[in-house]
Amino acid sequence: MSTKRFERPVLAECVKDLIATARGDLKATLVIQGGSLVNVISGEIIEQMSVAVQGARIAYVGKDVSHTIGPDTEIIDATGMYIAPGLLDGHCHIESTQLKVSEFARAVLPLGTTGGFFDAHEISNVLGLKGLKYMLEEARITPMAAYMQAPSCVPSTSPELETTGAWIGPEEVAEALSWGDDMIGLGEVMNFPGVVYGEDKMIGEIEATLRAGKAVDGHFTWASDDWRLPVYAAAGVTGDHECVTKEDVLERIRLGMYAKLRQGSAWHDVAETVKAATELGLDTRRMMLVTDDRSSESLLEEGHMNFVVRHAISQGLKPITAFQMATINTAERFGVQRDVGAIIPGSIADIILLKGRLANVDVDTTIAAGQVVARSGKMVAEWETYVYPEDALGTVHLAEPVQKEDFRIVAPITEGEIKARIIQVTENHVETKEIWEQVQVESGVVKLSTANDICKIAVIERHHMTGDKSVALVSGVGFHCPAAIAMTVAHDSHNLMVIGTNDELMAEAANRVAAMQGGVVVMTEEGTTEFPLQIAGLMSTEPFEVVASQSAGISTALQSAGCNLNNAFMTLSLLALVVIPELRLSDKGLVQISADGIKIVSLFE
Amino acid sequence: MSTKRFERPVLAECVKDLIATARGDLKATLVIQGGSLVNVISGEIIEQMSVAVQGARIAYVGKDVSHTIGPDTEIIDATGMYIAPGLLDGHCHIESTQLKVSEFARAVLPLGTTGGFFDAHEISNVLGLKGLKYMLEEARITPMAAYMQAPSCVPSTSPELETTGAWIGPEEVAEALSWGDDMIGLGEVMNFPGVVYGEDKMIGEIEATLRAGKAVDGHFTWASDDWRLPVYAAAGVTGDHECVTKEDVLERIRLGMYAKLRQGSAWHDVAETVKAATELGLDTRRMMLVTDDRSSESLLEEGHMNFVVRHAISQGLKPITAFQMATINTAERFGVQRDVGAIIPGSIADIILLKGRLANVDVDTTIAAGQVVARSGKMVAEWETYVYPEDALGTVHLAEPVQKEDFRIVAPITEGEIKARIIQVTENHVETKEIWEQVQVESGVVKLSTANDICKIAVIERHHMTGDKSVALVSGVGFHCPAAIAMTVAHDSHNLMVIGTNDELMAEAANRVAAMQGGVVVMTEEGTTEFPLQIAGLMSTEPFEVVASQSAGISTALQSAGCNLNNAFMTLSLLALVVIPELRLSDKGLVQISADGIKIVSLFE
Repeated sequence: MSTKRFERPVLAECVKDLIATARGDLKATLVIQGGSLVNVISGEIIEQMSVAVQGARIAYVGKDVSHTIGPDTEIIDATGMYIAPGLLDGHCHIESTQLKVSEFARAVLPLGTTGGFFDAHEISNVLGLKGLKYMLEEARITPMAAYMQAPSCVPSTSPELETTGAWIGPEEVAEALSWGDDMIGLGEVMNFPGVVYGEDKMIGEIEATLRAGKAVDGHFTWASDDWRLPVYAAAGVTGDHECVTKEDVLERIRLGMYAKLRQGSAWHDVAETVKAATELGLDTRRMMLVTDDRSSESLLEEGHMNFVVRHAISQGLKPITAFQMATINTAERFGVQRDVGAIIPGSIADIILLKGRLANVDVDTTIAAGQVVARSGKMVAEWETYVYPEDALGTVHLAEPVQKEDFRIVAPITEGEIKARIIQVTENHVETKEIWEQVQVESGVVKLSTANDICKIAVIERHHMTGDKSVALVSGVGFHCPAAIAMTVAHDSHNLMVIGTNDELMAEAANRVAAMQGGVVVMTEEGTTEFPLQIAGLMSTEPFEVVASQSAGISTALQSAGCNLNNAFMTLSLLALVVIPELRLSDKGLVQISADGIKIVSLFE
Repeated sequence: MSTKRFERPVLAECVKDLIATARGDLKATLVIQGGSLVNVISGEIIEQMSVAVQGARIAYVGKDVSHTIGPDTEIIDATGMYIAPGLLDGHCHIESTQLKVSEFARAVLPLGTTGGFFDAHEISNVLGLKGLKYMLEEARITPMAAYMQAPSCVPSTSPELETTGAWIGPEEVAEALSWGDDMIGLGEVMNFPGVVYGEDKMIGEIEATLRAGKAVDGHFTWASDDWRLPVYAAAGVTGDHECVTKEDVLERIRLGMYAKLRQGSAWHDVAETVKAATELGLDTRRMMLVTDDRSSESLLEEGHMNFVVRHAISQGLKPITAFQMATINTAERFGVQRDVGAIIPGSIADIILLKGRLANVDVDTTIAAGQVVARSGKMVAEWETYVYPEDALGTVHLAEPVQKEDFRIVAPITEGEIKARIIQVTENHVETKEIWEQVQVESGVVKLSTANDICKIAVIERHHMTGDKSVALVSGVGFHCPAAIAMTVAHDSHNLMVIGTNDELMAEAANRVAAMQGGVVVMTEEGTTEFPLQIAGLMSTEPFEVVASQSAGISTALQSAGCNLNNAFMTLSLLALVVIPELRLSDKGLVQISADGIKIVSLFE
């Protein structure tokens, strides 16, 4: 595109100009002078360093760049500041912020994140490859170094276990990876049993990715000392973020994988996983910091990669090592270290200036593709708006309106108590527990009381009007009054999920979400709180600030109803994710994930 | 080739079988049991580990591989031994061993080198791309992971400064890089002034390489704190072996380059350069151990990468770090870490077993591409012989026979003493010194005495019968009697170089070399020692053992004549290398290499 505001030309096209600039024969477009360089290659902080930029790329790094300065050169005085490479998020689902890509960029660029490796498997579960393509097209307009992955698991498991809006197989993966160098690899291969036991679809996708010379990301949630982790590695999977202990990190790195240390909104793994470096003393080059899923509220309240790096340092990691884990390690993992991840001649000028102590990761200025895009926490760059096509906006298709009867759970007894298999939420962790508890049965149907903190949970198919639905029980949500939450964000198949203590409110909330064509609705007897998500039922068309405020509204409404879980909405939205232990719900029923595999199980014994 | 003995299929083709083997459903072809694994990824030594191999690749790494063993599985008991990745030489000119590729492989595989990154710029200076292709074809037959580079500097400088047999430019580089994935990048860009000052040929070659997505290797011999090193880096050069101090390493790594720590036969740089790790404490991931040039005698007497790793450890480097510098770091530098450099599932099974202390790097068994190729220092694998075509064998073309008069140096005075510019040899280092000394003139020509250790040195064009020749003076060779050495190994243009104290012997030796169609001849009044090198005048058609013996014969003959330089032949052969400071001789005259550039200078003031 000739009108593109932020170009990232390949190095070969820039060599002549870069050399001429480095020599001083051509003048730099931008110069940063006299800061402390965070050199993630040598592992040093180097005082009094300057950087000269020509267009999108760095032409010179040294003590003195005065020979590159001409009358039109923009000069930034970095005295007293650190000059660091822009932060990279090594594994992230943008959809989890409920922001469209441009708004995500507007949210994270001022925080110092200049690039990421995005697995758009949420939108792809709804819209297939075309959803991915829309996000890619939008990403290419932003100043970010946005690398996209071809989703591997659409569906995350199989049509027997869940219904998705689309299907992606080996041919679709090969096609998506042909779209450009910014299509960086295969997204997290969550169907790890499928890989280990040789399912054609999974193996075909991996083969297609390896043939394209690209990286395969993993997601293995059996125990890290399970004998099958090396089997998974033998398939060519070289990265995995499903690490929750230092041993998880250790076992993956020993097998040649990159271990991604995750600090999402709803999973706080870094404090434990970073011990692989601080306690086990492993070589850190194959450790990366990632967010996986962060909500817009978390972006606002805590931050993005700046928060994760700061947090990692607070756990005892050397600052330079933490920066490496969010820059060069990540770039090397995906083979793009020639372009991003370090401040060296030839690389793209994705640079952040930090004030105060390095450990605070306090970003003052963000430069992306050679241009200042944010100062003092505010965006100063604009770019054209990407308009999502109509077919991305009307994606909620129910077979019929939801009725309160849809939430009845028929028991195998008429009256009394019966043991039921229950999903137990674990705060701040992605795993759930499968527990068994006695529930009351009246007139042949389960009757809940708020006293034991058990609610109903339902998943209603919303892609193809199949009419499939399932209802089960969940513990730990905290609702202490008649309440319901309905949402089309329900990982990963993103059907219509409803959780509540009152069948009428559940039906009403569900129908309201359908009427909005996607989003989140919380209903109590006091009122209704809405968070419309029109793009695929996952993302908002609104600016970041509006989204964060609406997202906060949902949190407040949930709290009023007694749900005090940290990042409650995100935690609840994962209750349908049938690839993470132990128990989940899909439109096909209760799904149990264990070392034996993934299977449908019954609610009662 | 269907008859190929050592296949290295791409991972995508192996995934199914690897997973099946890892699961135990398909039985391993080879299993190594119960050794201490040198894990260069995690940076650990792990006790009691086993490895299962399927064909060329590793299927499983773990404590227990018994489930992969079938009746036909070859089992190696590694009890009491280390299991390490095969060693990789990150920068090597095979021609410097005077061995053809197969014989090089036979020499180094038992020493634990299973792969290398070879810059065939010697043969290419004589034969052009077709020389490179012959070596590539031969390399592909061997068990080695032989990656070849397209030579960047043929000639090393320009036709004004030296005459070569061929010319390689951007188009030739692009062509060579299209020959396969084992064409790994651009060989050392020795014309660094050409890069810094934007010469079309050099920039074009770099652009062609970057467009092919491959790595550009460097060779920068101005001071490492010269302001132009970042200019060179801005061109996209990301590796350099011309490091002789720890600061040289530091400055390169800071600019994002891989610094190659070199231990050749005639340059012993590791003791100093490794201090960048042991004293400066830099991140070591961008440090690699390389040989650059080692003679066949050095291979026999000291070893290859096993010697270099052992030496690096003896300088205070942790053994695991030294192994990383000869395995994973090297693989990562060239982007082939998916195939070589670590013992992890999916990688090619290039594995060595070591006995005794790890620091001794005592190789017992070498496995390459999944097959045992050497045991107890002896090759146990055979492969077909590669026959070099006729046009590679007759490459010495002199305009006319050499006569003693060709070596006369006419002085600008008739009788007396005059100051002359002299090349001074520096033992164990590739640099020479430019010194000025008084020499005797009689009847208008320079008259040498053996007392002051100054000899004559001549370079006679041998590619195109141009008749060009030049004569100069060299100090430090040590000849104490009438003696001459003539050779077609004269880096990098490989003209006929003659060094001696007696014009008749010089002429006779030169003509003998021409009659042999290449090689080395030492002549004294006692006799003649010959070392025929028929392939391009650089490499022998004989087996390694014969070559090492003939090479040793040259050493002995040189010593008898008073030349006691360590690796004398190699040291002398570099006196024509016009890209390394300070003073060299080409067929065009005396060439001075300084911070000002590279230029022809006169013998007298």
